[in-house]
Amino acid sequence: MPASRHPPPSAGRGARERILAATRDLYYRQGINVTGVTELCAAARISKRTLYQHFASKDEVIAAYLAAVAGDPGYPPNAVLTRADLAPRARLLELYATLASGRRPLRGCPFVNAGVELPDPDHPGRRVAAAYKREFTDRLGALAREAGARGSERVGRRLALLYDGAAAQVTLYDDPEPAAEAQALAAAVLQTAMD
Amino acid sequence: MPASRHPPPSAGRGARERILAATRDLYYRQGINVTGVTELCAAARISKRTLYQHFASKDEVIAAYLAAVAGDPGYPPNAVLTRADLAPRARLLELYATLASGRRPLRGCPFVNAGVELPDPDHPGRRVAAAYKREFTDRLGALAREAGARGSERVGRRLALLYDGAAAQVTLYDDPEPAAEAQALAAAVLQTAMD
Repeated sequence: MPASRHPPPSAGRGARERILAATRDLYYRQGINVTGVTELCAAARISKRTLYQHFASKDEVIAAYLAAVAGDPGYPPNAVLTRADLAPRARLLELYATLASGRRPLRGCPFVNAGVELPDPDHPGRRVAAAYKREFTDRLGALAREAGARGSERVGRRLALLYDGAAAQVTLYDDPEPAAEAQALAAAVLQTAMD
Repeated sequence: MPASRHPPPSAGRGARERILAATRDLYYRQGINVTGVTELCAAARISKRTLYQHFASKDEVIAAYLAAVAGDPGYPPNAVLTRADLAPRARLLELYATLASGRRPLRGCPFVNAGVELPDPDHPGRRVAAAYKREFTDRLGALAREAGARGSERVGRRLALLYDGAAAQVTLYDDPEPAAEAQALAAAVLQTAMD
């Protein structure tokens, strides 16, 4: 009998995908460090043995979780920055709204959160998170340039700073209001760079 | 023999202070959730029994840690906001420099970090963190008013947003540069409110 027709539930082709789906729920919602491998395997309906067939260590699971979010075109910040129905300036401002929606308690930015949870700068998950956020900042700068802003690289850094501040605050307060304040200041930053 | 002259090492009058000193090192530097009670007790040179004579639970230790930082006049953000040698505007701008100094890897704001690490909005540590940061935001607004800014409450919220964004970024990147960018934008926000 081909293994692919009746895979055992703990070693099916979707095991890696189920692990990553479980991380995107549990690591994001309750945190990386409090989520043990046992809980993750239970949520993914796989055995620990299967998890360690796919990943050499929990650190590799964490890095794969962050890479999966970073590479997901449906991750709201990725989706909004590529919305063809919005002009560059509107895409940049809509970005802040992604922090205010979603399940409560609000949990902000998974990459900012990884920075807090993984204090070792050489942790493979932190490297993924920092690389994504540097690229994210570059994308904000490129959109600012498309929107006609002068000093677009600096504008991009400032928009990213406001995004991360709002991410930290919506998380701490479980309140969407800081995202609106960040959006208003981001609009002013863009306006100043276009006047 | 009076107990105070020769207190047993595990139950001396300084046990609570030693526990809090250990949290201010370990919880801040490596994180709250990865620091177990056993490691904390070893660093504080006390027994677990003594820890639980002073605190009902780890959650209470966490709340006491955050309250100790919040109430410490020597905590750099508290110290800089009360510096008599600086005018209100200079105090506000100097605040960002506190995020760029200190031991590497940079760990940003302990209250922002607590928001990430403690996802339950009812956690006693989160309540302490959120209350401190709301008061901190009010203090920034009051200093902005003293500096002559119009709309000082909004200015205070914006300066806090920039502070928390810089805190998140210096932590994620282990790089002081975002604190300088935040300071520059904070100066522009203040200037706009005074023009």
